[in-house]
Amino acid sequence: MKFQRLALIGCGLMGGSFALALREAGLVAHVTGFSASEGTRQKALRLGVIDSACSSAAEAVRGADLVLVAVPVRATEDTLRAIDPALSPDALVMDVGSTKGDVVAAARAALQQRLHCFVPAHPIAGKEVAGVENADASLYRDCLVVLTPLPHTPTGRVLLAQQVWQALGSRVCELSPEAHDASFAAVSHLPHLTAFALVNAVARQPHGARHLSMAGPGFRDFSRIAASDSSIWRDILLANRDEVLHQSALMRQALEELEHAMRDGDASRLQGLIDEASQTRSRWRLGGADSDV
Amino acid sequence: MKFQRLALIGCGLMGGSFALALREAGLVAHVTGFSASEGTRQKALRLGVIDSACSSAAEAVRGADLVLVAVPVRATEDTLRAIDPALSPDALVMDVGSTKGDVVAAARAALQQRLHCFVPAHPIAGKEVAGVENADASLYRDCLVVLTPLPHTPTGRVLLAQQVWQALGSRVCELSPEAHDASFAAVSHLPHLTAFALVNAVARQPHGARHLSMAGPGFRDFSRIAASDSSIWRDILLANRDEVLHQSALMRQALEELEHAMRDGDASRLQGLIDEASQTRSRWRLGGADSDV
Repeated sequence: MKFQRLALIGCGLMGGSFALALREAGLVAHVTGFSASEGTRQKALRLGVIDSACSSAAEAVRGADLVLVAVPVRATEDTLRAIDPALSPDALVMDVGSTKGDVVAAARAALQQRLHCFVPAHPIAGKEVAGVENADASLYRDCLVVLTPLPHTPTGRVLLAQQVWQALGSRVCELSPEAHDASFAAVSHLPHLTAFALVNAVARQPHGARHLSMAGPGFRDFSRIAASDSSIWRDILLANRDEVLHQSALMRQALEELEHAMRDGDASRLQGLIDEASQTRSRWRLGGADSDV
Repeated sequence: MKFQRLALIGCGLMGGSFALALREAGLVAHVTGFSASEGTRQKALRLGVIDSACSSAAEAVRGADLVLVAVPVRATEDTLRAIDPALSPDALVMDVGSTKGDVVAAARAALQQRLHCFVPAHPIAGKEVAGVENADASLYRDCLVVLTPLPHTPTGRVLLAQQVWQALGSRVCELSPEAHDASFAAVSHLPHLTAFALVNAVARQPHGARHLSMAGPGFRDFSRIAASDSSIWRDILLANRDEVLHQSALMRQALEELEHAMRDGDASRLQGLIDEASQTRSRWRLGGADSDV
Protein backbone atom coordinates (compact mmCIF):
# COMPACT_ATOMS: atom_id res chain seq x y z
CA MET A 1 0.00 0.00 0.00
CA LYS A 2 1.47 3.30 -1.11
CA PHE A 3 -0.41 6.39 -2.18
CA GLN A 4 0.75 8.61 -5.03
CA ARG A 5 -1.00 11.70 -3.83
CA LEU A 6 -2.64 12.64 -0.56
CA ALA A 7 -4.92 15.66 -0.69
CA LEU A 8 -5.21 17.29 2.69
CA ILE A 9 -8.29 19.49 2.92
CA GLY A 10 -7.85 21.43 6.13
CA CYS A 11 -4.24 21.81 7.27
CA GLY A 12 -4.76 21.88 11.04
CA LEU A 13 -3.66 19.70 13.93
CA MET A 14 -5.55 16.58 12.85
CA GLY A 15 -4.89 16.82 9.12
CA GLY A 16 -1.30 17.93 9.54
CA SER A 17 -0.58 15.04 11.92
CA PHE A 18 -2.08 12.58 9.43
CA ALA A 19 0.11 13.89 6.61
CA LEU A 20 3.25 13.79 8.76
CA ALA A 21 2.49 10.26 9.96
CA LEU A 22 1.78 8.97 6.47
CA ARG A 23 4.98 10.53 5.21
CA GLU A 24 7.01 9.12 8.10
CA ALA A 25 5.61 5.66 7.34
CA GLY A 26 6.74 6.06 3.73
CA LEU A 27 3.19 5.61 2.50
CA VAL A 28 2.78 8.69 0.35
CA ALA A 29 4.75 10.22 -2.53
CA HIS A 30 3.27 13.71 -2.64
CA VAL A 31 0.95 15.76 -0.43
CA THR A 32 -1.19 18.59 -1.76
CA GLY A 33 -2.96 20.81 0.71
CA PHE A 34 -5.77 23.30 0.93
CA SER A 35 -6.88 25.47 3.81
CA ALA A 36 -9.29 28.37 3.62
CA SER A 37 -6.60 30.65 5.01
CA GLU A 38 -3.65 31.46 2.77
CA GLY A 39 -1.52 31.94 5.90
CA THR A 40 -2.27 28.40 7.08
CA ARG A 41 -1.43 26.97 3.66
CA GLN A 42 1.93 28.73 3.66
CA LYS A 43 2.65 27.60 7.22
CA ALA A 44 1.84 23.96 6.30
CA LEU A 45 4.17 24.28 3.31
CA ARG A 46 6.94 25.81 5.41
CA LEU A 47 6.63 23.08 8.06
CA GLY A 48 6.93 20.36 5.41
CA VAL A 49 3.43 19.07 6.15
CA ILE A 50 2.38 19.51 2.49
CA ASP A 51 4.45 19.58 -0.70
CA SER A 52 2.25 21.95 -2.63
CA ALA A 53 -0.42 24.41 -1.58
CA CYS A 54 -3.56 24.73 -3.71
CA SER A 55 -5.91 27.66 -3.88
CA SER A 56 -9.05 25.51 -3.90
CA ALA A 57 -10.15 22.20 -2.43
CA ALA A 58 -11.08 20.90 -5.91
CA GLU A 59 -7.61 21.66 -7.24
CA ALA A 60 -6.03 19.88 -4.28
CA VAL A 61 -7.97 16.61 -4.80
CA ARG A 62 -7.41 16.41 -8.57
CA GLY A 63 -5.40 13.25 -9.18
CA ALA A 64 -5.32 12.27 -5.51
CA ASP A 65 -5.80 8.59 -4.57
CA LEU A 66 -6.23 9.50 -0.89
CA VAL A 67 -8.19 12.48 0.43
CA LEU A 68 -8.44 13.52 4.06
CA VAL A 69 -11.11 16.07 4.88
CA ALA A 70 -10.02 17.56 8.20
CA VAL A 71 -12.16 20.68 8.40
CA PRO A 72 -14.46 21.82 11.20
CA VAL A 73 -17.45 19.44 11.16
CA ARG A 74 -19.90 22.13 10.09
CA ALA A 75 -17.81 22.81 6.95
CA THR A 76 -17.92 19.15 5.86
CA GLU A 77 -20.89 19.39 3.50
CA ASP A 78 -19.60 22.45 1.62
CA THR A 79 -16.16 20.88 1.39
CA LEU A 80 -17.45 17.58 0.01
CA ARG A 81 -19.63 19.49 -2.47
CA ALA A 82 -16.59 21.45 -3.62
CA ILE A 83 -14.40 18.41 -4.21
CA ASP A 84 -17.05 16.07 -5.67
CA PRO A 85 -16.58 17.02 -9.35
CA ALA A 86 -12.78 16.72 -9.12
CA LEU A 87 -12.62 13.40 -7.23
CA SER A 88 -11.13 10.36 -8.92
CA PRO A 89 -13.61 7.44 -8.78
CA ASP A 90 -10.86 5.30 -7.24
CA ALA A 91 -9.95 7.72 -4.45
CA LEU A 92 -10.39 6.84 -0.79
CA VAL A 93 -11.95 9.83 0.99
CA MET A 94 -12.05 10.04 4.78
CA ASP A 95 -12.85 12.65 7.37
CA VAL A 96 -11.77 12.94 11.02
CA GLY A 97 -14.93 14.41 12.55
CA SER A 98 -15.94 13.72 16.15
CA THR A 99 -19.60 13.26 15.20
CA LYS A 100 -20.76 10.90 12.50
CA GLY A 101 -24.51 11.14 11.96
CA ASP A 102 -24.16 14.69 10.63
CA VAL A 103 -21.10 13.81 8.54
CA VAL A 104 -22.90 10.90 6.89
CA ALA A 105 -25.87 13.14 6.14
CA ALA A 106 -23.51 15.74 4.67
CA ALA A 107 -21.84 13.12 2.47
CA ARG A 108 -25.19 11.83 1.20
CA ALA A 109 -26.23 15.37 0.34
CA ALA A 110 -22.97 16.52 -1.21
CA LEU A 111 -21.38 13.58 -3.00
CA GLN A 112 -23.03 12.56 -6.26
CA GLN A 113 -21.24 9.76 -8.13
CA ARG A 114 -18.49 9.60 -5.52
CA LEU A 115 -20.39 8.55 -2.37
CA HIS A 116 -18.78 5.10 -2.63
CA CYS A 117 -15.36 6.74 -2.15
CA PHE A 118 -16.19 7.97 1.33
CA VAL A 119 -15.38 6.12 4.56
CA PRO A 120 -16.28 8.25 7.61
CA ALA A 121 -13.57 8.03 10.27
CA HIS A 122 -13.14 9.31 13.81
CA PRO A 123 -9.67 9.01 15.31
CA ILE A 124 -9.95 9.33 19.11
CA ALA A 125 -6.95 11.60 19.39
CA GLY A 126 -6.32 15.27 19.90
CA LYS A 127 -4.57 17.90 21.91
CA GLU A 128 -5.72 20.97 23.78
CA VAL A 129 -3.74 23.04 21.28
CA ALA A 130 -4.89 23.43 17.68
CA GLY A 131 -3.12 24.39 14.50
CA VAL A 132 -0.68 22.87 12.04
CA GLU A 133 2.23 24.12 14.18
CA ASN A 134 1.23 21.47 16.73
CA ALA A 135 0.91 18.67 14.18
CA ASP A 136 2.65 15.53 15.39
CA ALA A 137 3.50 12.39 13.41
CA SER A 138 2.79 10.24 16.48
CA LEU A 139 -0.68 11.64 17.24
CA TYR A 140 -2.47 8.55 15.92
CA ARG A 141 -0.13 5.96 17.42
CA ASP A 142 -1.97 3.67 19.86
CA CYS A 143 -5.21 5.55 19.39
CA LEU A 144 -8.59 4.10 18.48
CA VAL A 145 -10.12 4.98 15.11
CA VAL A 146 -13.83 4.35 14.64
CA LEU A 147 -15.02 3.82 11.07
CA THR A 148 -18.72 4.23 10.34
CA PRO A 149 -19.11 2.94 6.75
CA LEU A 150 -22.35 3.48 4.85
CA PRO A 151 -24.42 0.40 3.97
CA HIS A 152 -23.26 0.53 0.35
CA THR A 153 -19.62 1.39 0.94
CA PRO A 154 -17.60 -1.24 -0.96
CA THR A 155 -15.80 -3.63 1.39
CA GLY A 156 -12.47 -2.96 -0.32
CA ARG A 157 -12.70 0.73 0.56
CA VAL A 158 -13.37 -0.06 4.20
CA LEU A 159 -10.45 -2.51 4.32
CA LEU A 160 -8.14 0.04 2.73
CA ALA A 161 -9.23 2.65 5.27
CA GLN A 162 -8.49 0.16 8.07
CA GLN A 163 -5.03 -0.54 6.67
CA VAL A 164 -4.16 3.14 6.43
CA TRP A 165 -4.94 3.78 10.09
CA GLN A 166 -3.32 0.56 11.24
CA ALA A 167 -0.18 1.52 9.34
CA LEU A 168 -0.09 4.68 11.46
CA GLY A 169 -0.26 2.59 14.64
CA SER A 170 -3.98 2.99 15.34
CA ARG A 171 -6.48 0.35 16.39
CA VAL A 172 -9.61 0.31 14.26
CA CYS A 173 -13.21 -0.63 14.98
CA GLU A 174 -16.48 -0.27 13.09
CA LEU A 175 -19.78 1.11 14.35
CA SER A 176 -22.94 2.48 12.81
CA PRO A 177 -23.01 6.30 12.81
CA GLU A 178 -25.86 6.20 15.36
CA ALA A 179 -24.03 3.87 17.74
CA HIS A 180 -20.91 6.00 17.36
CA ASP A 181 -22.73 9.19 18.25
CA ALA A 182 -24.45 7.60 21.25
CA SER A 183 -21.17 6.23 22.65
CA PHE A 184 -19.25 9.46 22.18
CA ALA A 185 -22.03 11.55 23.64
CA ALA A 186 -21.54 9.46 26.80
CA VAL A 187 -17.77 9.14 27.08
CA SER A 188 -16.51 12.26 25.33
CA HIS A 189 -19.08 14.98 24.74
CA LEU A 190 -20.65 14.71 28.21
CA PRO A 191 -17.30 14.85 30.03
CA HIS A 192 -16.40 17.95 28.00
CA LEU A 193 -19.74 19.62 28.71
CA THR A 194 -19.36 18.80 32.40
CA ALA A 195 -15.78 20.05 32.59
CA PHE A 196 -16.82 23.34 30.90
CA ALA A 197 -19.66 23.73 33.42
CA LEU A 198 -17.53 22.97 36.46
CA VAL A 199 -14.72 25.32 35.49
CA ASN A 200 -17.20 28.13 34.81
CA ALA A 201 -19.06 27.48 38.08
CA VAL A 202 -15.85 27.61 40.13
CA ALA A 203 -14.23 30.57 38.37
CA ARG A 204 -17.31 32.81 38.54
CA GLN A 205 -17.58 32.69 42.33
CA PRO A 206 -16.47 35.61 44.49
CA HIS A 207 -13.51 33.54 45.76
CA GLY A 208 -13.08 31.62 42.50
CA ALA A 209 -9.48 32.72 41.97
CA ARG A 210 -8.49 31.56 45.46
CA HIS A 211 -10.32 28.26 44.98
CA LEU A 212 -8.50 27.65 41.71
CA SER A 213 -5.13 28.49 43.24
CA MET A 214 -5.65 25.63 45.71
CA ALA A 215 -6.51 23.03 43.10
CA GLY A 216 -4.33 19.94 42.87
CA PRO A 217 -3.62 17.06 40.49
CA GLY A 218 -7.21 15.75 40.71
CA PHE A 219 -8.60 19.01 39.38
CA ARG A 220 -5.80 19.26 36.81
CA ASP A 221 -6.70 15.93 35.22
CA PHE A 222 -10.47 16.26 35.61
CA SER A 223 -10.53 19.69 33.96
CA ARG A 224 -7.85 19.22 31.29
CA ILE A 225 -10.47 18.83 28.54
CA ALA A 226 -12.11 22.12 29.56
CA ALA A 227 -9.21 23.87 27.80
CA SER A 228 -10.37 22.51 24.43
CA ASP A 229 -11.02 24.68 21.39
CA SER A 230 -14.34 26.49 21.69
CA SER A 231 -15.34 26.54 18.02
CA ILE A 232 -14.67 22.82 17.57
CA TRP A 233 -16.66 21.94 20.70
CA ARG A 234 -19.51 24.31 19.88
CA ASP A 235 -19.92 22.38 16.63
CA ILE A 236 -19.64 18.94 18.22
CA LEU A 237 -22.18 19.73 20.95
CA LEU A 238 -24.63 21.17 18.42
CA ALA A 239 -24.13 18.36 15.89
CA ASN A 240 -24.83 15.70 18.53
CA ARG A 241 -27.23 17.79 20.59
CA ASP A 242 -29.99 15.28 21.28
CA GLU A 243 -27.65 12.54 22.42
CA VAL A 244 -25.62 14.92 24.58
CA LEU A 245 -28.72 16.37 26.25
CA HIS A 246 -29.92 12.82 26.92
CA GLN A 247 -26.59 11.91 28.51
CA SER A 248 -26.57 15.10 30.53
CA ALA A 249 -30.00 14.25 31.93
CA LEU A 250 -28.75 10.81 32.95
CA MET A 251 -25.78 12.37 34.71
CA ARG A 252 -28.00 14.81 36.61
CA GLN A 253 -30.00 11.86 37.88
CA ALA A 254 -26.86 10.11 39.11
CA LEU A 255 -25.68 13.36 40.70
CA GLU A 256 -29.03 13.85 42.43
CA GLU A 257 -28.81 10.35 43.84
CA LEU A 258 -25.46 11.17 45.42
CA GLU A 259 -26.76 14.51 46.69
CA HIS A 260 -29.79 12.88 48.28
CA ALA A 261 -27.62 10.37 50.10
CA MET A 262 -25.48 13.27 51.37
CA ARG A 263 -28.49 15.36 52.38
CA ASP A 264 -30.03 12.40 54.22
CA GLY A 265 -26.70 11.67 55.91
CA ASP A 266 -27.10 8.14 54.56
CA ALA A 267 -23.47 7.03 54.82
CA SER A 268 -23.98 3.49 53.63
CA ARG A 269 -26.01 4.52 50.58
CA LEU A 270 -23.44 7.19 49.75
CA GLN A 271 -20.58 4.75 50.07
CA GLY A 272 -22.44 2.25 47.89
CA LEU A 273 -22.81 4.80 45.09
CA ILE A 274 -19.17 5.87 45.30
CA ASP A 275 -18.08 2.25 45.39
CA GLU A 276 -20.07 1.54 42.24
CA ALA A 277 -18.21 4.32 40.40
CA SER A 278 -14.87 3.42 41.92
CA GLN A 279 -15.12 -0.22 40.89
CA THR A 280 -16.26 0.65 37.37
CA ARG A 281 -13.40 3.08 36.91
CA SER A 282 -10.80 0.76 38.47
CA ARG A 283 -11.76 -2.00 36.05
CA TRP A 284 -11.78 0.29 33.01
CA ARG A 285 -8.78 0.29 30.70
CA LEU A 286 -7.89 2.62 27.85
CA GLY A 287 -8.12 0.66 24.63
CA GLY A 288 -10.87 -1.67 25.80
CA ALA A 289 -12.21 -1.73 22.24
CA ASP A 290 -9.05 -3.52 21.10
CA SER A 291 -10.80 -6.74 20.31
CA ASP A 292 -13.69 -5.22 18.36
CA VAL A 293 -12.00 -5.72 15.00
CA MET B 1 15.42 20.52 62.88
CA LYS B 2 15.53 16.85 63.75
CA PHE B 3 12.89 14.88 65.60
CA GLN B 4 13.74 12.19 68.12
CA ARG B 5 10.54 10.30 67.78
CA LEU B 6 7.73 10.43 65.25
CA ALA B 7 4.49 8.77 66.29
CA LEU B 8 2.47 7.67 63.31
CA ILE B 9 -1.17 7.13 64.20
CA GLY B 10 -2.67 5.42 61.17
CA CYS B 11 -0.16 3.54 59.03
CA GLY B 12 -1.79 3.96 55.61
CA LEU B 13 -0.78 5.62 52.36
CA MET B 14 -0.64 9.17 53.72
CA GLY B 15 0.97 8.39 57.08
CA GLY B 16 3.36 5.81 55.66
CA SER B 17 4.51 8.22 52.95
CA PHE B 18 5.12 10.92 55.58
CA ALA B 19 7.26 8.56 57.70
CA LEU B 20 9.27 7.39 54.69
CA ALA B 21 9.84 10.95 53.49
CA LEU B 22 10.90 12.20 56.92
CA ARG B 23 13.28 9.28 57.28
CA GLU B 24 14.71 9.81 53.79
CA ALA B 25 15.34 13.46 54.65
CA GLY B 26 17.23 12.36 57.77
CA LEU B 27 14.82 14.27 59.98
CA VAL B 28 13.76 11.56 62.41
CA ALA B 29 15.61 9.11 64.65
CA HIS B 30 12.84 6.67 65.51
CA VAL B 31 9.29 6.03 64.27
CA THR B 32 6.64 4.39 66.41
CA GLY B 33 3.40 3.39 64.79
CA PHE B 34 -0.15 2.46 65.65
CA SER B 35 -2.96 1.24 63.41
CA ALA B 36 -6.22 -0.26 64.55
CA SER B 37 -5.42 -3.41 62.59
CA GLU B 38 -2.63 -5.64 63.91
CA GLY B 39 -2.02 -6.80 60.31
CA THR B 40 -1.41 -3.23 59.14
CA ARG B 41 0.98 -2.58 62.02
CA GLN B 42 3.02 -5.65 61.13
CA LYS B 43 3.04 -4.72 57.45
CA ALA B 44 4.28 -1.20 58.27
CA LEU B 45 7.02 -2.73 60.41
CA ARG B 46 8.01 -5.20 57.71
CA LEU B 47 8.14 -2.45 55.06
CA GLY B 48 10.42 -0.35 57.26
CA VAL B 49 7.86 2.43 57.53
CA ILE B 50 7.90 2.26 61.37
CA ASP B 51 10.59 1.03 63.75
CA SER B 52 8.28 -0.21 66.47
CA ALA B 53 4.60 -1.13 66.48
CA CYS B 54 2.50 -0.12 69.48
CA SER B 55 -0.74 -1.68 70.59
CA SER B 56 -2.41 1.65 71.41
CA ALA B 57 -2.29 5.19 70.08
CA ALA B 58 -1.43 6.51 73.57
CA GLU B 59 1.55 4.19 73.82
CA ALA B 60 2.77 5.28 70.39
CA VAL B 61 2.77 9.02 71.21
CA ARG B 62 4.48 8.68 74.61
CA GLY B 63 7.80 10.54 74.33
CA ALA B 64 7.17 11.62 70.73
CA ASP B 65 8.12 15.18 69.69
CA LEU B 66 6.22 14.82 66.40
CA VAL B 67 2.83 13.14 65.98
CA LEU B 68 1.03 12.59 62.68
CA VAL B 69 -2.61 11.58 62.93
CA ALA B 70 -3.38 9.99 59.56
CA VAL B 71 -6.64 8.19 60.26
CA PRO B 72 -9.96 8.41 58.39
CA VAL B 73 -11.40 11.87 59.16
CA ARG B 74 -14.33 10.50 61.13
CA ALA B 75 -11.91 8.74 63.54
CA THR B 76 -10.03 11.98 64.30
CA GLU B 77 -11.90 12.96 67.49
CA ASP B 78 -11.60 9.52 69.13
CA THR B 79 -7.93 9.33 68.17
CA LEU B 80 -7.13 12.77 69.60
CA ARG B 81 -9.03 11.88 72.78
CA ALA B 82 -7.01 8.69 73.11
CA ILE B 83 -3.62 10.36 72.74
CA ASP B 84 -4.35 13.54 74.75
CA PRO B 85 -3.23 12.23 78.19
CA ALA B 86 0.01 10.79 76.78
CA LEU B 87 1.07 13.80 74.67
CA SER B 88 4.21 15.72 75.59
CA PRO B 89 3.39 19.45 75.96
CA ASP B 90 6.16 20.22 73.47
CA ALA B 91 5.00 17.86 70.75
CA LEU B 92 3.89 19.08 67.35
CA VAL B 93 0.70 17.25 66.39
CA MET B 94 -0.66 17.36 62.83
CA ASP B 95 -3.29 15.58 60.82
CA VAL B 96 -3.64 15.08 57.04
CA GLY B 97 -7.43 15.30 56.68
CA SER B 98 -9.08 16.61 53.51
CA THR B 99 -11.65 18.60 55.50
CA LYS B 100 -10.73 21.04 58.21
CA GLY B 101 -13.84 22.48 59.88
CA ASP B 102 -14.72 19.08 61.34
CA VAL B 103 -11.11 18.34 62.32
CA VAL B 104 -10.81 21.63 64.19
CA ALA B 105 -14.09 20.93 66.00
CA ALA B 106 -12.81 17.45 66.87
CA ALA B 107 -9.56 18.88 68.23
CA ARG B 108 -11.39 21.45 70.36
CA ALA B 109 -13.61 18.72 71.78
CA ALA B 110 -10.90 16.10 72.35
CA LEU B 111 -7.70 17.90 73.33
CA GLN B 112 -7.61 19.32 76.86
CA GLN B 113 -4.26 20.90 77.86
CA ARG B 114 -2.69 19.98 74.53
CA LEU B 115 -4.79 21.96 72.05
CA HIS B 116 -1.81 24.30 71.51
CA CYS B 117 0.18 21.32 70.14
CA PHE B 118 -2.14 20.84 67.19
CA VAL B 119 -1.62 22.34 63.73
CA PRO B 120 -4.27 21.04 61.30
CA ALA B 121 -2.72 20.20 57.92
CA HIS B 122 -4.02 19.11 54.53
CA PRO B 123 -1.44 17.93 52.03
CA ILE B 124 -2.98 18.03 48.54
CA ALA B 125 -1.59 14.67 47.54
CA GLY B 126 -2.86 11.16 47.15
CA LYS B 127 -3.20 8.17 44.92
CA GLU B 128 -6.13 6.09 43.74
CA VAL B 129 -4.61 3.17 45.67
CA ALA B 130 -4.66 3.11 49.46
CA GLY B 131 -2.62 1.22 52.04
CA VAL B 132 0.87 1.31 53.50
CA GLU B 133 2.11 -0.96 50.68
CA ASN B 134 1.65 2.02 48.35
CA ALA B 135 3.45 4.48 50.65
CA ASP B 136 5.94 6.57 48.72
CA ALA B 137 8.68 8.83 50.07
CA SER B 138 8.10 11.28 47.21
CA LEU B 139 4.32 11.66 47.67
CA TYR B 140 4.62 15.13 49.22
CA ARG B 141 7.28 16.48 46.89
CA ASP B 142 6.03 19.52 44.94
CA CYS B 143 2.60 19.27 46.54
CA LEU B 144 0.70 22.03 48.31
CA VAL B 145 0.06 21.69 52.04
CA VAL B 146 -2.63 23.90 53.58
CA LEU B 147 -2.29 24.65 57.28
CA THR B 148 -5.36 25.91 59.13
CA PRO B 149 -4.00 26.98 62.54
CA LEU B 150 -6.39 27.84 65.38
CA PRO B 151 -6.46 31.47 66.58
CA HIS B 152 -4.44 30.60 69.67
CA THR B 153 -1.94 28.21 68.10
CA PRO B 154 1.53 29.52 69.08
CA THR B 155 3.38 31.00 66.08
CA GLY B 156 6.40 28.79 66.76
CA ARG B 157 4.28 25.67 66.29
CA VAL B 158 2.95 26.90 62.96
CA LEU B 159 6.47 27.78 61.76
CA LEU B 160 7.75 24.36 62.78
CA ALA B 161 4.88 22.70 60.92
CA GLN B 162 5.76 24.77 57.83
CA GLN B 163 9.40 23.73 58.05
CA VAL B 164 8.54 20.05 58.31
CA TRP B 165 6.48 20.09 55.12
CA GLN B 166 8.93 22.31 53.28
CA ALA B 167 11.72 19.90 54.20
CA LEU B 168 9.71 17.18 52.41
CA GLY B 169 9.54 19.34 49.29
CA SER B 170 6.02 20.71 49.79
CA ARG B 171 4.80 24.26 49.34
CA VAL B 172 2.84 25.56 52.32
CA CYS B 173 0.03 28.08 52.66
CA GLU B 174 -2.30 29.11 55.49
CA LEU B 175 -6.08 29.45 55.42
CA SER B 176 -8.87 29.54 57.94
CA PRO B 177 -10.65 26.17 58.27
CA GLU B 178 -13.77 27.72 56.70
CA ALA B 179 -11.92 29.13 53.70
CA HIS B 180 -10.15 25.81 53.29
CA ASP B 181 -13.38 23.84 53.24
CA ALA B 182 -15.02 26.25 50.79
CA SER B 183 -12.08 26.08 48.38
CA PHE B 184 -11.77 22.31 48.48
CA ALA B 185 -15.49 21.81 48.10
CA ALA B 186 -15.09 23.68 44.79
CA VAL B 187 -11.88 22.27 43.36
CA SER B 188 -11.68 18.81 44.88
CA HIS B 189 -14.91 17.50 46.43
CA LEU B 190 -17.15 18.71 43.59
CA PRO B 191 -14.94 17.20 40.85
CA HIS B 192 -14.98 13.90 42.74
CA LEU B 193 -18.75 13.97 43.21
CA THR B 194 -19.17 14.81 39.53
CA ALA B 195 -16.79 12.09 38.36
CA PHE B 196 -18.64 9.51 40.51
CA ALA B 197 -21.96 10.63 39.01
CA LEU B 198 -20.76 10.57 35.42
CA VAL B 199 -19.16 7.13 35.67
CA ASN B 200 -22.31 5.71 37.27
CA ALA B 201 -24.56 7.37 34.67
CA VAL B 202 -22.55 5.96 31.77
CA ALA B 203 -22.00 2.47 33.17
CA ARG B 204 -25.66 1.89 34.10
CA GLN B 205 -26.96 2.39 30.57
CA PRO B 206 -28.00 -0.54 28.38
CA HIS B 207 -24.95 0.07 26.13
CA GLY B 208 -22.75 1.32 28.96
CA ALA B 209 -20.05 -1.32 28.45
CA ARG B 210 -19.76 -0.46 24.74
CA HIS B 211 -19.66 3.24 25.51
CA LEU B 212 -16.86 2.72 28.03
CA SER B 213 -14.88 0.56 25.62
CA MET B 214 -14.77 3.53 23.21
CA ALA B 215 -13.53 6.03 25.77
CA GLY B 216 -10.24 7.78 25.09
CA PRO B 217 -7.63 9.83 26.94
CA GLY B 218 -10.10 12.64 27.71
CA PHE B 219 -12.34 10.26 29.64
CA ARG B 220 -9.33 8.60 31.25
CA ASP B 221 -8.10 11.84 32.79
CA PHE B 222 -11.53 13.27 33.60
CA SER B 223 -12.63 10.13 35.43
CA ARG B 224 -9.35 9.14 37.14
CA ILE B 225 -10.56 10.47 40.50
CA ALA B 226 -13.73 8.36 40.27
CA ALA B 227 -11.54 5.36 41.21
CA SER B 228 -10.89 6.86 44.65
CA ASP B 229 -11.50 4.99 47.90
CA SER B 230 -15.19 4.91 48.76
CA SER B 231 -14.94 5.05 52.55
CA ILE B 232 -12.56 8.02 52.50
CA TRP B 233 -14.78 9.93 50.07
CA ARG B 234 -17.99 9.05 51.88
CA ASP B 235 -16.47 10.72 54.96
CA ILE B 236 -15.17 13.76 53.10
CA LEU B 237 -18.49 14.41 51.34
CA LEU B 238 -20.42 14.05 54.59
CA ALA B 239 -17.97 16.13 56.62
CA ASN B 240 -18.16 19.01 54.13
CA ARG B 241 -21.74 18.39 53.05
CA ASP B 242 -23.14 21.93 53.04
CA GLU B 243 -20.27 23.39 51.04
CA VAL B 244 -20.31 20.51 48.56
CA LEU B 245 -24.07 20.75 48.01
CA HIS B 246 -23.68 24.50 47.48
CA GLN B 247 -20.95 23.91 44.89
CA SER B 248 -22.98 21.21 43.20
CA ALA B 249 -25.90 23.63 42.85
CA LEU B 250 -23.60 26.19 41.23
CA MET B 251 -22.35 23.59 38.78
CA ARG B 252 -25.88 22.57 37.83
CA GLN B 253 -26.62 26.20 37.01
CA ALA B 254 -23.57 26.41 34.77
CA LEU B 255 -24.53 23.11 33.15
CA GLU B 256 -28.08 24.31 32.54
CA GLU B 257 -26.74 27.43 30.89
CA LEU B 258 -24.77 25.30 28.45
CA GLU B 259 -27.75 23.02 27.86
CA HIS B 260 -30.03 25.96 27.16
CA ALA B 261 -27.64 27.35 24.58
CA MET B 262 -27.53 23.89 22.95
CA ARG B 263 -31.32 23.47 23.06
CA ASP B 264 -31.82 26.93 21.55
CA GLY B 265 -29.22 26.21 18.88
CA ASP B 266 -27.54 29.45 20.03
CA ALA B 267 -24.08 28.80 18.61
CA SER B 268 -22.56 32.09 19.63
CA ARG B 269 -23.80 31.87 23.22
CA LEU B 270 -22.59 28.26 23.42
CA GLN B 271 -19.18 29.17 22.06
CA GLY B 272 -18.96 32.06 24.51
CA LEU B 273 -19.58 29.75 27.47
CA ILE B 274 -17.07 27.17 26.25
CA ASP B 275 -14.56 29.91 25.57
CA GLU B 276 -14.94 31.20 29.12
CA ALA B 277 -14.09 27.75 30.50
CA SER B 278 -11.34 27.16 27.97
CA GLN B 279 -9.60 30.43 28.75
CA THR B 280 -9.88 29.91 32.51
CA ARG B 281 -8.44 26.41 32.26
CA SER B 282 -5.70 27.41 29.81
CA ARG B 283 -4.51 30.13 32.19
CA TRP B 284 -4.64 27.87 35.27
CA ARG B 285 -1.40 26.36 36.54
CA LEU B 286 -0.88 23.67 39.15
CA GLY B 287 0.79 25.28 42.13
CA GLY B 288 -0.80 28.68 41.63
CA ALA B 289 -0.83 29.13 45.42
CA ASP B 290 2.97 29.20 45.39
CA SER B 291 3.18 32.81 46.43
CA ASP B 292 0.66 32.60 49.27
CA VAL B 293 3.33 32.03 51.93
